[in-house]
Amino acid sequence: MTREVGAAGRFVRQANRFATPFGDGPGALPIEPGRYRLLWTPICPWAHRSVIVRRVLGLESVISLGTAHPIRTADGWEFSRDPGGVDPVLGIRYLTELYRATDPDYEGRATVPAVADVNTGTVVNNDYFRLTNYLETVWKPFHRSYAPDLYPESLRDEIDALNQVLFDDVNNGVYKCGFARSQAAYEEAFDRLFARLDQLNDRLATRRYLLGDRLTDSDVRLYVTLVRFDAAYYWAFRTNLRRIVDYPHLWAYARDLYQSYGFGDTTDFHAIKQGYAHVVASQDQFAIIPQGPDRSAWLTAHGRERLGGDS
Amino acid sequence: MTREVGAAGRFVRQANRFATPFGDGPGALPIEPGRYRLLWTPICPWAHRSVIVRRVLGLESVISLGTAHPIRTADGWEFSRDPGGVDPVLGIRYLTELYRATDPDYEGRATVPAVADVNTGTVVNNDYFRLTNYLETVWKPFHRSYAPDLYPESLRDEIDALNQVLFDDVNNGVYKCGFARSQAAYEEAFDRLFARLDQLNDRLATRRYLLGDRLTDSDVRLYVTLVRFDAAYYWAFRTNLRRIVDYPHLWAYARDLYQSYGFGDTTDFHAIKQGYAHVVASQDQFAIIPQGPDRSAWLTAHGRERLGGDS
Repeated sequence: MTREVGAAGRFVRQANRFATPFGDGPGALPIEPGRYRLLWTPICPWAHRSVIVRRVLGLESVISLGTAHPIRTADGWEFSRDPGGVDPVLGIRYLTELYRATDPDYEGRATVPAVADVNTGTVVNNDYFRLTNYLETVWKPFHRSYAPDLYPESLRDEIDALNQVLFDDVNNGVYKCGFARSQAAYEEAFDRLFARLDQLNDRLATRRYLLGDRLTDSDVRLYVTLVRFDAAYYWAFRTNLRRIVDYPHLWAYARDLYQSYGFGDTTDFHAIKQGYAHVVASQDQFAIIPQGPDRSAWLTAHGRERLGGDS
Repeated sequence: MTREVGAAGRFVRQANRFATPFGDGPGALPIEPGRYRLLWTPICPWAHRSVIVRRVLGLESVISLGTAHPIRTADGWEFSRDPGGVDPVLGIRYLTELYRATDPDYEGRATVPAVADVNTGTVVNNDYFRLTNYLETVWKPFHRSYAPDLYPESLRDEIDALNQVLFDDVNNGVYKCGFARSQAAYEEAFDRLFARLDQLNDRLATRRYLLGDRLTDSDVRLYVTLVRFDAAYYWAFRTNLRRIVDYPHLWAYARDLYQSYGFGDTTDFHAIKQGYAHVVASQDQFAIIPQGPDRSAWLTAHGRERLGGDS
């Protein structure tokens, strides 16, 4: 993480290295069942997005899945849950091997999600921001019957704009809190995060989903952060003004999604807590002071005079 | 902290070094206004007890107060808030100096609360468990008019028994969670802590205070942990099954005390959060995985079908 620090101690996420699009265009990655393997780990919200969308759209038999252990080792993500500790298709022990096989000069973090071409044993795409959109559009010929359209053309501009806001303030916003290297950078991210959650809670008071009546790509993006919030970010990243269970609409919305096909069944709370416990343990600590919880509640009426005694 | 580790990674609090009682008996510390100085820091629950009792009983002009900075330095508690960085009465910069002046061979942590004899510049008592009881009994001739009797003779056996339970499961229970050196030790302390909080919440449903109609020493002991719980222990010590605000009776009880003379006015939330942020930052991290929050809530009815859309 130490290289991803910007001005005034702010966290700045590294850019993606492999961003070739999927599709028919020249130089694009061809759409071909059985050719790709999606690599993820259950702690990671960026990878979880693609795993949810793959399942909701029924792409499981078309794009295979490799799962790294949720505790990131000093050598990066490791396939230690697999027999013999190696991914059975790619034959790698660490994700880093795949990145190095693709680009021997690669020096960034070897991140998930990563899509590997199983024929060449290389990374072809690790674009966490656009990956779900490819699955939703150019992979459409392989969707299951009655799969929802998560990225309908008529809503794309609105979804794209909302996704950028979700990224800046929420998805990456929690990381800006957790990886801040100064109290001021933490507080700035904290204020933006909770202002945005307040607004999203209001938005969801009268709409089933973020864009209205239909589930879209934006819901997947909000879900992966919400489901990790109380279990991990609240304590590990000190995002402790309010929990998700304290927001009536966000909390009901999160449960609605959790109980839907592809969401709860791809969510591993133990892995999430285990993973973030190690993130906290392994990174430098900067003694950031949590902003929350709201202390004004201590002065509200307690009503205990009715039980007698001196007041 | 590293020396205070017992079997299976359990935290074992060090014993008190200076336990001479106050009173009239032979060898006891004489009751004398102006002779003693109570040293504390606002982060510390053990010291906060004595500060609350001193104020509730009106002993402020009888026993003076020295306040160390809430961030414990590598050299221990420091009087850096005072002019010139030294306690104006004792002339010390660090509490360790006082302990060394008293016992050059002292090797434990120099803890608060510590009562110093201002004539000799030595520690005469650091018995956090009994100190409030001395203030409540042998110091009675100096109590303010109408001071409550926090340790009435008729209730002492009951108070003492309850205080031991509060110590084992709650006051020190949170530290057993936070300073556990194994997952098993953490989970054992965690289960005991929340079983006890559940029980105390029930007990307080029909009683204004722990012992009934009157405020006692036990309430002070429970308060100092409750007031730090959501602000610090929940995240810093991973005591995250429930917050105090999630317990209807404990939360109303805590607010009742907070709004009472001597409690809220001696509680410094910023110092508490600042202090525990540094406790977490400075100690070794063992990647303990939090037990909470309760994940079964994710499966409760969400009621969002009424908003339309697909379910």
